[in-house]
Amino acid sequence: MDIKFNDGFTAIYEYVKKQKPLIHHLTNYVTAGDCANIALCFGASPIMADAAEEISEITGSADALVLNLGTMNKVKFASMELAAVRARKKGIPIVIDPVGVMASDMRFEAAMEIIRGGASIVRGNYAECQTLLLETRRGKGVDSLVTCQSDIGHLAEQAAQKYGCIFAVTGKEDAISDGKRTIIGSNGVEMLTKVTGTGCMTTTLIGCAAASTKDYLLAALCGIQTMNVAAEIAFKALKDNEGPGTFKTRLLDSVYQLSSEELAKMSKLR
Amino acid sequence: MDIKFNDGFTAIYEYVKKQKPLIHHLTNYVTAGDCANIALCFGASPIMADAAEEISEITGSADALVLNLGTMNKVKFASMELAAVRARKKGIPIVIDPVGVMASDMRFEAAMEIIRGGASIVRGNYAECQTLLLETRRGKGVDSLVTCQSDIGHLAEQAAQKYGCIFAVTGKEDAISDGKRTIIGSNGVEMLTKVTGTGCMTTTLIGCAAASTKDYLLAALCGIQTMNVAAEIAFKALKDNEGPGTFKTRLLDSVYQLSSEELAKMSKLR
Amino acid sequence: MDIKFNDGFTAIYEYVKKQKPLIHHLTNYVTAGDCANIALCFGASPIMADAAEEISEITGSADALVLNLGTMNKVKFASMELAAVRARKKGIPIVIDPVGVMASDMRFEAAMEIIRGGASIVRGNYAECQTLLLETRRGKGVDSLVTCQSDIGHLAEQAAQKYGCIFAVTGKEDAISDGKRTIIGSNGVEMLTKVTGTGCMTTTLIGCAAASTKDYLLAALCGIQTMNVAAEIAFKALKDNEGPGTFKTRLLDSVYQLSSEELAKMSKLR
Repeated sequence: MDIKFNDGFTAIYEYVKKQKPLIHHLTNYVTAGDCANIALCFGASPIMADAAEEISEITGSADALVLNLGTMNKVKFASMELAAVRARKKGIPIVIDPVGVMASDMRFEAAMEIIRGGASIVRGNYAECQTLLLETRRGKGVDSLVTCQSDIGHLAEQAAQKYGCIFAVTGKEDAISDGKRTIIGSNGVEMLTKVTGTGCMTTTLIGCAAASTKDYLLAALCGIQTMNVAAEIAFKALKDNEGPGTFKTRLLDSVYQLSSEELAKMSKLR
Repeated sequence: MDIKFNDGFTAIYEYVKKQKPLIHHLTNYVTAGDCANIALCFGASPIMADAAEEISEITGSADALVLNLGTMNKVKFASMELAAVRARKKGIPIVIDPVGVMASDMRFEAAMEIIRGGASIVRGNYAECQTLLLETRRGKGVDSLVTCQSDIGHLAEQAAQKYGCIFAVTGKEDAISDGKRTIIGSNGVEMLTKVTGTGCMTTTLIGCAAASTKDYLLAALCGIQTMNVAAEIAFKALKDNEGPGTFKTRLLDSVYQLSSEELAKMSKLR
Repeated sequence: MDIKFNDGFTAIYEYVKKQKPLIHHLTNYVTAGDCANIALCFGASPIMADAAEEISEITGSADALVLNLGTMNKVKFASMELAAVRARKKGIPIVIDPVGVMASDMRFEAAMEIIRGGASIVRGNYAECQTLLLETRRGKGVDSLVTCQSDIGHLAEQAAQKYGCIFAVTGKEDAISDGKRTIIGSNGVEMLTKVTGTGCMTTTLIGCAAASTKDYLLAALCGIQTMNVAAEIAFKALKDNEGPGTFKTRLLDSVYQLSSEELAKMSKLR
């Protein structure tokens, strides 16, 4: 497969750093600060807001909407629905992170309702995306062990076809599909699993990229690759006595420093 | 203009580090941890609490009240009003950060109600303070581009006169005014805009300082200068491959290490 | 007193790193991310969730329950009660952190209700545990100055006897008691008080350990010693111009790197 994303990545990077798109997040309180910081490192302008009273105004000013199901509840979900309605009407991308969708009926139903109502990109791990594809809950917690990763590309493809949007399944390898075209990436490091919110932050980066192009397959790929390549650079610089704390700090540094040329050069895609 | 703040800064620093004033925050979930950490680095004792049931007791024990409008909602605003009433009765300073006040009617009305009810210090960026002065909403998001900074001192002065409290307008340059006297500061670094919550943290530092002196103009100046001078020290120590992640970590280190003598020496004020 | 915890620590460390127990937290929004990160560094799998609709399912999947009273309110407390009921029925440990229990009636009543209903381990500072033992509110804020630490062991022992669970009182020295046996630890560094959430994170580590053994006295000791010994290692590596920011980052690194052998060797217990 002949893939050349250099120009696409460059266009997104230039747009984000110049236009500073406003990324409206309805997200969890565990990693909200990390998501805001990675959006700023990437060049975008994050806003976190979830009060029903102001949702319509804030989504109305935004260039992309990121919905993250971590620490959600009924009240926050009502706001997510309002935000999604506004985003669809306005035509801005909706990126959803179905955090722990296999962990409760509430999360499952919330994710299904948003995706069925119309989402642009879904970014989850294998267990989360499998739950959405099969419409049945499996696993435990938010970091469920994946029983089978051999068909990650197949999972992304099928889910994308079923729901008519981009599916980005991340893990040891990543698969991004629009139902027709499926790209497999093999960047990233194991230590990403030792820092909370690296999935959420990846979804934020996808939201930033999706604010910059109508090619959402490219946007999802760009967000995931930015996280994974930055993680490789951050990990490589770690000293023997350093671990997840220093890694997280340097991950932000690396996203800030990363150029689109370096991104394209280091990306391992097929 | 002959400004000598050395003694004032020294008095505040000594008071905070010795008395560890309790700073009650009603704040957003994005940067609450960062605000608590910077208060601790400065020597104060932060408490974050917003349940209506306990507000009166907690504000009643506090030495200053910090109200931050990020991720606010109706429930939290009701608690803010209770806290403000208690703080006014008790005579402790109320410092408000009108985060994104131009982004929604709810935030605008909340800010106006608190300020009109009686606040001690307002700390915001240009767009936020302009919105409050003109009583009309402009811009987008929480980091709106400022269209005109030439009259930042004029803005602070007018707003302070209009509302009868200290206005601290922060940005590339900062202006702090009580309506009669206006001080312009030009410390700080661009990278402060690449870390979420540096505005919120500045407001927290102002709250810590305001718990230590009745001269709220001096307190606002001390909080802002502490952030900006610490940021200059943190930035100067960055290596080529470091960025906002490392900068944020070292910013906390620098606030912890900073002496009032160094603060006065490095301050560029006019 | 002849104490040998090497084997006990090793068994817990091996279990956590191999089984990755799921630790369900109902916790505050100030330090939730820090708690998730330290759980990951220790090898466990954290989940933060507090919506009443999903509590029963999530506690039902968990291996331990951590209840932290920071930034609590009526709604969150109702979820805590549901979670506690489910945890007791399932037989998983309940670890409670009575953050600022002396600061408000609401927190005091919430803590008493959970502890009386049946908790496995209580982890608090001197003022918090004293409040629980005496059933009377004292002090201010969450970091109240301790008036008397000479009888920390006595406090832990009495509280453990009164409530029939493990009490872990942390401070300059730490006391862990089941009412019969009381262990005093003297590890840790002063700088732990300059970082928000180090108490919350200690409680999380205790939760991770308690998911791995039925010996809750050992679990509480293991969690506290992991934090304190890691803090000593992190502190020792600090350079002159570094402070709480860098210390917090390295604290996570150190928990990640720490072996149970090193833990046992560096522990000062009597």
